[in-house]
Amino acid sequence: MFDVRRSSFNITCERLCFFKFRMDRFDPVARAISLDLPGPSLGDNRSHESRVRAALEYILGQPPLFPLKICKVLPDILSSSGYKVQTLVLDGPSGWEVAQVSAAGDPLRSYGLAVDLGSTTVVFYLVDLGSGEVVSTLSKSNPQRVHGEDILERILFAGQGNGLETLQSEVVGLFNSSVREIAAGHDMSPEDICFIALAGNTNMCHFFLGLDPGHICREPYIPVVNRFDLIRPGEIGINAHPQAWLYCFPNVGSYFGGDLLAGILASGMHLKEEISMLVDVGTNAEVVLGNRDWLVACAGAAGPALEGGILSCGMRAQPGAIDRVDIDRNKLTVMFHTKDGKSPEGLCGSGIIDLLAAMFVAGLVDPTGKLVVDRDSARMQQVGGEWVYVVAGPHETGHGKPVHISQSDIKNLIRSKGAMYTILNVVIQSVGIGFEDIERFYVAGAFGNYIDPQKAIIIGMLPDVPLERFKGLGNAAGTGAIEALTWRKARKEVEEICDKITYLEMNVRGDFMNQLTGSLFLPHTDLTRFPSVAEMMKG
Amino acid sequence: MFDVRRSSFNITCERLCFFKFRMDRFDPVARAISLDLPGPSLGDNRSHESRVRAALEYILGQPPLFPLKICKVLPDILSSSGYKVQTLVLDGPSGWEVAQVSAAGDPLRSYGLAVDLGSTTVVFYLVDLGSGEVVSTLSKSNPQRVHGEDILERILFAGQGNGLETLQSEVVGLFNSSVREIAAGHDMSPEDICFIALAGNTNMCHFFLGLDPGHICREPYIPVVNRFDLIRPGEIGINAHPQAWLYCFPNVGSYFGGDLLAGILASGMHLKEEISMLVDVGTNAEVVLGNRDWLVACAGAAGPALEGGILSCGMRAQPGAIDRVDIDRNKLTVMFHTKDGKSPEGLCGSGIIDLLAAMFVAGLVDPTGKLVVDRDSARMQQVGGEWVYVVAGPHETGHGKPVHISQSDIKNLIRSKGAMYTILNVVIQSVGIGFEDIERFYVAGAFGNYIDPQKAIIIGMLPDVPLERFKGLGNAAGTGAIEALTWRKARKEVEEICDKITYLEMNVRGDFMNQLTGSLFLPHTDLTRFPSVAEMMKG
Repeated sequence: MFDVRRSSFNITCERLCFFKFRMDRFDPVARAISLDLPGPSLGDNRSHESRVRAALEYILGQPPLFPLKICKVLPDILSSSGYKVQTLVLDGPSGWEVAQVSAAGDPLRSYGLAVDLGSTTVVFYLVDLGSGEVVSTLSKSNPQRVHGEDILERILFAGQGNGLETLQSEVVGLFNSSVREIAAGHDMSPEDICFIALAGNTNMCHFFLGLDPGHICREPYIPVVNRFDLIRPGEIGINAHPQAWLYCFPNVGSYFGGDLLAGILASGMHLKEEISMLVDVGTNAEVVLGNRDWLVACAGAAGPALEGGILSCGMRAQPGAIDRVDIDRNKLTVMFHTKDGKSPEGLCGSGIIDLLAAMFVAGLVDPTGKLVVDRDSARMQQVGGEWVYVVAGPHETGHGKPVHISQSDIKNLIRSKGAMYTILNVVIQSVGIGFEDIERFYVAGAFGNYIDPQKAIIIGMLPDVPLERFKGLGNAAGTGAIEALTWRKARKEVEEICDKITYLEMNVRGDFMNQLTGSLFLPHTDLTRFPSVAEMMKG
Repeated sequence: MFDVRRSSFNITCERLCFFKFRMDRFDPVARAISLDLPGPSLGDNRSHESRVRAALEYILGQPPLFPLKICKVLPDILSSSGYKVQTLVLDGPSGWEVAQVSAAGDPLRSYGLAVDLGSTTVVFYLVDLGSGEVVSTLSKSNPQRVHGEDILERILFAGQGNGLETLQSEVVGLFNSSVREIAAGHDMSPEDICFIALAGNTNMCHFFLGLDPGHICREPYIPVVNRFDLIRPGEIGINAHPQAWLYCFPNVGSYFGGDLLAGILASGMHLKEEISMLVDVGTNAEVVLGNRDWLVACAGAAGPALEGGILSCGMRAQPGAIDRVDIDRNKLTVMFHTKDGKSPEGLCGSGIIDLLAAMFVAGLVDPTGKLVVDRDSARMQQVGGEWVYVVAGPHETGHGKPVHISQSDIKNLIRSKGAMYTILNVVIQSVGIGFEDIERFYVAGAFGNYIDPQKAIIIGMLPDVPLERFKGLGNAAGTGAIEALTWRKARKEVEEICDKITYLEMNVRGDFMNQLTGSLFLPHTDLTRFPSVAEMMKG
C-alpha cells in the first residue's frame, strides 16, 4: 500500500472555500430574536400582538404573520416576563411568521434539519441555525431497500396494494427515529427542529410525500409534482416543532431531481459569470452546464458499472474497499489503498477508475478494452472460462478470495465511461462550445468526490482539460440542503434555476448513439481529444 | 297613523348606488376556474401540478400555492377527466392557493359567509362568490346574551373558570347551526363555504377567537390582538371547506373595532377626495372623519338612552315599536307609525328622536329639556310623582298601558345626544375644520339607518348641514364584511385604513367636558350653530 497524496483531491482547500462562500450567504430561515419591549400605557395602548409584531417588523424589515395559537398565550407571557421575551420566526410561504414566543429566561433553540434522501443512504445534518454550523451528521441506510435496490422495483412495489403508504411510512419512520437519535446526543427534542430541507431525486421525493410515482417511469415520464410548496412536517407524520416547515427541493423532470438542483445550489455555478459544468457521477450521469445567465441539463444512463455495482469484485466504499490503485508501468507492481486500511475485499468506484487507467497506461489492457494477457502472466488468470486480472491475491485479501477485474467487467466499464463522456459531449455541443471553454468542472455524486480526475481523463471518461479546473463538491445534495436552511434566498434561487434550465432529453437525441461509438475506446478513437493522454502514452 | 314618506330615508337610491359601487369592485376572494388542459407528451412532460399551476398562473397573473393533499389526487382526476378539470382557488395569506380540483362534470360551488357579529344580534350573509350576490341572510340572537346584555358582564364572565371557552363555543355553535340552516335552504353543504369574513367589535372578536379580553376594559385598555391574520375556520371548530380561510376584521383599539372598520370600508370614504364623516350611532358613538389621505377616529359613550335602552317606554325596533312620530305644532295632535303597523307598545331609537324633536318644535319641551306641562294638559300627566308626556293612551296600545316619555327620560336623552354632538365637534375641531367642510355624513349603526336626520338636527344631535349630505349606510358592518369577500383588495384597504387612522382618546381630552355643557340644550346654547332650527322655531 502506498500513500496516495492525491486521494484527498483538494478537499481541504475546497472546504475552506466553501465555508467562506457560505459565510457570505448566511441568512437562515429561522431566527431567534430577543425583545425587550416597552410596556403599554395610555399613550401606547397597542395590542400585545401589535407590540411584538412591530418590534419584529423593525428587525426583519417586514411584519411577520402571527398565528392565533401564539396570540392566545401572549398576554400571560408578556405580563409574566415584564415584556422581555424571546421569539422564534420562520421564513414560511409568505415570508416571516412567528413560530414561538416565550419568556426571556427560557432557552430558545432554532435547529434545522438538512436531509440528503438517497435511494441507498439517507444522510441527516442537524444545523444550528443561530451559527449555521452543522452540529451533527447521521447517515442511515434507506429502509426502502428491502423492496429493491433498484428504483424501478420500488416504483412497482408502490403500485401494489398500499405499497406507496409502506414506502412513505418507512422513510418517515427513519426520519423520526434518526431525529430522536440526533436529539438525544444534543440535549434537545425533535420539537426544537423548526425547519427541514430535503433533497432527493424525483422518485424518492414522491415516495416520501406519498405521491403516486407510477407515471415517472413510463412515457412521457410525468411526475405528479415538479415544485413542492412548503408543507407542515406533521402533515406526513414527521415530528418537529408544531410551526415547523418542510422544504423539498423541486425537480425539473422525472430524471432530473432535487438532489441535482441542490448540487447546483451548492456549486454556486448559477451565480457566476464563468461557464461551469457540474457532473454527478453515478448509475445515471447527470450533467449541468452553464452560468448565471443560462443552464443546460441532461441526464442519461451511464450504467452501474462505474459504481462497481455489477462488477465481479465491485463493492461499496466500505472498509476493505480498494479506493486507490496504481501500477508501475515498467515493473507492473500493483499498489493499492483500502478504505480504513483494512485488508482488501473488493473495488469501489474510484478504485475501479484508477485500476482501468493504470492498466491502460501499463499496457495491460489495449485501447479497445481487451486484456493483454501476455503482459503479466502472473496476474492474468482464467476464471470460469474468462480472463481476469488479479489486483490482490487470496493471501492479501480479507476474505481469502482474490480481488480481480474480468474481461467482461472491463467491457461494461468502457460502456459506462463512454456513455458518460458522450453525455458531456452532447451537452457542450448543444450550446456550441468546447470543453476548453469551461472554467470549472464540479464533480459530485456518491463517489464522484473520490474520483481522481487524472485517472478519469486517462480512460476517457472526463474531458482532457487542466486538472485544476476540477473541483470535488463533496455531498453536493446535502450541502445544497444545508444551504436551503442557512440562506433564505436559496429557495428563490432554486426556482430561478428551474426556470432557467433547458433540459435535453438524451433518450430522444440521435447524436448520442452516433457519438457513443468513438467513446467505446480507451480513451477515445479520436486521440486529439485527449492530448495529455496521448503524450503520456508516448513516454 | 300617517304615512311617513321620509321614513325610507333614501334607502332605495342608496342601495342602487351601493350596488353600482360594488360592481366596480367585484374581484372575489374565491374563484372557480374551469381548465381544459393539453395532455402530456414527450415534448411537454411537465408534472401534473405544473400543468395545472401554469394554467392558473396564466389566468390569475400569479402562480397559486398547491397544497400537498390536492397534489395527491391530481393524477387520478386528470387522467379520469381527460385533463378537463374545475379548480377552486382562494386568496390566502400569500396570494392565490388551490383549494380544490375536481373533474369537469362535478359541480363546484364557491360560497362565502359574511358575518356581522354583534353583541345582541349575529347576522349571517351567504354570498355566491361567482356572482357577488347575497343569496341568503339569517339573523340570530347572540347566545352570549344569557351571560349579560352588557359587554362588561361578559368580560367578567370570561375571566371566571372556563368562561372564555364557554363564550367562544356558544358563538361557534351558533355559526355551525346557522350555516347548517342556511345550507339546507340552498342545496349545499357547509363544506361549500370557502371563505368567511367577520366584522365585530373588539370584544366580540376576542370572545370568538378565544382570546383573553381581560385587558380590554382596564386601563390602559389593551386588546390581545389588533390585526388578526387569516385562520383556518377548523382551528376554532367552525365547519367549512377544509381549505377555507376566515378573515376577522382588525381593530384599532379596545373601543374601535372591526365593525366600524367594516363600516368605513362599506362607505368608501377612505377612497374619496371629499371629506366625509361616518357616525355609528349607538350606546357608543363611534365617529370617523377623513378622506383617502387621512382619517381621524373617536369613540365615546353616548349612553343607552339613544337606543331606547333605559327609557321608561323604550324598546327594540320590533313589531309594535313606534319608529316615527310627529306632532302638529298648532293642534298638538300626535301622529305615529309602528313597525309592521301593529298596535304600539313602546318607542324605539328613531321614534324617540322624532318624538323629542316634535315636542321641542311644538313647545311641549323647552330648550333646557323641561316639559312644558301647561302646553297640553291632556297628555301631560303625573306618574309616580314625575311628569310624563303620553304619546299613546292605554286604549291605543297593544298591552293596554300608555306609551309615554318622562321628564327624566328627556334628561337622559339630552345627555346622550349632547355627548354625541360633542364627540362629533371634538373630532372636527381636532383637524381644524367645520361641519360645513364635510361633504358627506354616513349614518350607520343598529338604528342609525332609521334616524330621520332632520329630527336629529332639531334636537342638536347631528350638525345642521344640508339634509342631502346625510346617507344611511344600512348594516354597514355586514356590508363591509360582504365586501371583504367580493373585493380581494378589501383586506389590504382595511390595513391601510388602520395605518391611516389617528385615534383620539376621548377619555383623556379635557375639551370634551367643556364643550358638553353647551350641548345639553335643545338644540344647543349657541343657536348660530343650528340656523335651520332657529329659522323653524321663528315660523
